[in-house]
Amino acid sequence: MKTYKIAVVGATGMVGRTFLKVLEEKCFPNCEYTLFSSARSAGKEIDFMGEKYICRELTETSFNEGFDIALFSAGGATSAKFAPIAAAKGCVVIDNSSHFRMDESVPLIVPEVNPEALAQHKGIIANPNCSTIQAMVALAPLHKKYGIRRIIYSTYQAVSGAGVEGVRDLERTAKGEAPEKWPHSIYNNCLPHIDVFLDNGYTKEEQKMIDETHKILGDKSIGVTATTVRVPILNSHSESINIELARKFEVEDIKELLKNSDGITLYDDVENNIYPLATIATDSDSTFVGRIRRDFSQPRTLNMWVVADNIRKGAATNAVQIAELLIAK
Amino acid sequence: MKTYKIAVVGATGMVGRTFLKVLEEKCFPNCEYTLFSSARSAGKEIDFMGEKYICRELTETSFNEGFDIALFSAGGATSAKFAPIAAAKGCVVIDNSSHFRMDESVPLIVPEVNPEALAQHKGIIANPNCSTIQAMVALAPLHKKYGIRRIIYSTYQAVSGAGVEGVRDLERTAKGEAPEKWPHSIYNNCLPHIDVFLDNGYTKEEQKMIDETHKILGDKSIGVTATTVRVPILNSHSESINIELARKFEVEDIKELLKNSDGITLYDDVENNIYPLATIATDSDSTFVGRIRRDFSQPRTLNMWVVADNIRKGAATNAVQIAELLIAK
Repeated sequence: MKTYKIAVVGATGMVGRTFLKVLEEKCFPNCEYTLFSSARSAGKEIDFMGEKYICRELTETSFNEGFDIALFSAGGATSAKFAPIAAAKGCVVIDNSSHFRMDESVPLIVPEVNPEALAQHKGIIANPNCSTIQAMVALAPLHKKYGIRRIIYSTYQAVSGAGVEGVRDLERTAKGEAPEKWPHSIYNNCLPHIDVFLDNGYTKEEQKMIDETHKILGDKSIGVTATTVRVPILNSHSESINIELARKFEVEDIKELLKNSDGITLYDDVENNIYPLATIATDSDSTFVGRIRRDFSQPRTLNMWVVADNIRKGAATNAVQIAELLIAK
Repeated sequence: MKTYKIAVVGATGMVGRTFLKVLEEKCFPNCEYTLFSSARSAGKEIDFMGEKYICRELTETSFNEGFDIALFSAGGATSAKFAPIAAAKGCVVIDNSSHFRMDESVPLIVPEVNPEALAQHKGIIANPNCSTIQAMVALAPLHKKYGIRRIIYSTYQAVSGAGVEGVRDLERTAKGEAPEKWPHSIYNNCLPHIDVFLDNGYTKEEQKMIDETHKILGDKSIGVTATTVRVPILNSHSESINIELARKFEVEDIKELLKNSDGITLYDDVENNIYPLATIATDSDSTFVGRIRRDFSQPRTLNMWVVADNIRKGAATNAVQIAELLIAK
């Protein structure tokens, strides 16, 4: 049986630590791990798989050691520089940054949705944006069965999506201190501003949701728009999604379809106050879907509410699932 | 010059106290005020207009004293019982509860939008739902100039919308205590559940936004849908609104139109991180509109972000503005 050599790049960050947690839970057989970090965090000791691991500084020669798979979550600049080096040495990179996502030679994968795209990889595979991943898990079954015409996203995104700096800004501003990560207090505010503003008036986060939806569903004819909003909650993103379908549907059939789809927990029993919530999704790998109802404002349209742990399914778990697919092959 | 006798019903509640604050600021000439409360709060002393007022218990004979105008914010049951009694005695009731809003004989007024509907009143005038009011201020100018075909609301509503009990639930759950007002913790959650659930799967809050939009804009042919969500912030509601227009537009013309419309502060300069925020809207009577951009997913469609103080413009200020209109007549 082959032994897999796996590198975790950015092991001390919020997503990096969750990579380790998810890897421990999944407990892949026959794997050897090496943890990499920035020069600043190198030498740090991390408890992993019941042992002490020492973080090593990532350098241009790090990938000479014959790694099979590298999980990257150390920011776009690190990915841009080191992912091609790793790939050139025969290591398959699963990259959590946005850097390669729209590159046509790089598959963008949600394992429940488009695992077949994996076959096209040339050494780098991109992990989608957190808010896109959970939407794709919920929407792909609808697209396959009914055809999606148009999607309107309004998001309610947790501060953990901005890593430890986001969490710290919520703590700081709750104490009345000035924000450092964001231009405004996230405490007592909903900030309609995630990532930078583009020339078209959208934020980069909104544009990511639009572009990545097209790429993952493999259909640029779907109309997609988004308003992405940071809200003062710690973890798990919520999304209000309005979906126009090409074919007629019954709401009960939609519920049945989603209930039987991979990666989804149908959480929709409003009489008993059951609907997806951030505190329920946190620490789960499932995407919770509820508040499913017909939108009476036009034909063949529905509303739903989708919640998932943005650090787990929205980042670490999705990447580790991609690694599982690679190993299974 | 006539002296107006004004009754404030529910003077000790969150909206009631803001009625008093707004009345103090507006400083209507020649008005005499009487403050009413429930039996429980009767006898309470309230500082108002530089004097001490004693709250009186509201009873069936309270309106025998010849009031001209009564501002009600004491819940639907109190309005249902006492508003008709007041109206029968010649007092014009401006009611903040939802009880009479959809009654065809009761005008539902946003002064910037449909002041002409006031002429039809038969003694009771309804103040719309907080989330509807701010949306109407922002959307009515678009409807008049371009014709609105369809509206998709996703709201981010503050806990103050549920009065002191809502504020208390945020405080309680932030300390790890169990919620009392809502079935789930509002701390660290976005609750897609405001008011009760209806048979069609929508909440009553969502249905209010749909029905009241039709009534205030005077056009039931507009497609309207809504997802209303409580978020863990203290005050001011934010709204992500997607609007399909009947006629072509330029984004710059939309901005110019809104900038010159009553009750609106155009707050839209993303290069300088200027967009509407709850903390900016709080204590203002203006409706802040920003993030105005074309929705490229279909023709003649745009997205915007609308924020207002739900207790002021969303309740107290709007009601006092209606009283101003009455007095001006």
